[in-house]
Amino acid sequence: MSKEIDQLSAALARLPGLGPRSARRAVLWLVKNRESALPALLESLAIVSETLVECSICGNVDTTDPCQICADPRRDPRALCVVEDVADVWALDRAKLFRGRYHVLGGRLSALDGVGPEDLNIAKLLDRVGAKEEGGGIDEVVLAMNATLEGQTTAHYLAERLEPYGVRITQLAHGLPVGGELDYLDEGTLAQALRARRPMG
Amino acid sequence: MSKEIDQLSAALARLPGLGPRSARRAVLWLVKNRESALPALLESLAIVSETLVECSICGNVDTTDPCQICADPRRDPRALCVVEDVADVWALDRAKLFRGRYHVLGGRLSALDGVGPEDLNIAKLLDRVGAKEEGGGIDEVVLAMNATLEGQTTAHYLAERLEPYGVRITQLAHGLPVGGELDYLDEGTLAQALRARRPMG
Repeated sequence: MSKEIDQLSAALARLPGLGPRSARRAVLWLVKNRESALPALLESLAIVSETLVECSICGNVDTTDPCQICADPRRDPRALCVVEDVADVWALDRAKLFRGRYHVLGGRLSALDGVGPEDLNIAKLLDRVGAKEEGGGIDEVVLAMNATLEGQTTAHYLAERLEPYGVRITQLAHGLPVGGELDYLDEGTLAQALRARRPMG
Repeated sequence: MSKEIDQLSAALARLPGLGPRSARRAVLWLVKNRESALPALLESLAIVSETLVECSICGNVDTTDPCQICADPRRDPRALCVVEDVADVWALDRAKLFRGRYHVLGGRLSALDGVGPEDLNIAKLLDRVGAKEEGGGIDEVVLAMNATLEGQTTAHYLAERLEPYGVRITQLAHGLPVGGELDYLDEGTLAQALRARRPMG
């Protein structure tokens, strides 16, 4: 095998869900389908690689700025769902249950990992919620943190910070398995948790 | 999720070992690692896509023609290993046991799939073996077909066609599990099968 094929194999092996052996099989499959599948994958990857950008409003990653969700006029501008990660936006949005917009923190508070409030996308969240006073009009903030200790700590911290703004603050209903991460849940569980969301406190 | 990201997800989901869900996780991982891993993958893929070529000697696919194996002067020019597929070259060569060169048939005889001798890379194989008379010097042809019915039928057919050339014709030792495909075997089994190879007939 040539150096170039080895390097592709190594690059693919870094993807989650692929190990060295399955990456080799993937490369081989690409080699076999080099006239049909390889150009398509290359093109998709190039387009995404060139256009990927962080949304300046919510922190989601998309190929446009603002992202498709922030730019969608059919979205309810009064509801905001705060999540830890881009993965969580995708997971919730796949379930097609929440019709408001999102805000991505980019992590969670963690004493262990040395992540404090200043490391998260919180200032912009407060700006967005605060814009209510000038008619921005956010009525409800759903704190959709993971059901982990750090996620819940983050939710409580945010609830405290958001309290002065007088918006309705809710969190996902329990129904999430304890210790579970949002991004791994089936849509049924996500639906139940979102429907039964309840006031923070 | 934008159309572009969806398309990348779909392109990745076609890879063996990845389904729609794991492809989405892979895309997300690429999105998260868009500064480190994404450009590396893109570059590897582009290089391979541009340089991939079928070796005009043996039918292997590599980034050079002749392929690295055919071009390697340390390889024994007197031993030739005939395999069904490019995958088999890679599998055998990873085991680092065979120091000769390869010949890729590009399939196996199959009445069911309507694959006849004229559909396989056989004429070139006979040319290579026949070149012996002009000093090309192939002494042994190892028929390393899969241990399937069609693989073994192909091996017998090739043994018959090669008989007039007066070379030693061997096949991989049994030790391969019946019905097993070469590309899936561990190197230990491959090693045993290659070491115990025996005359065809």
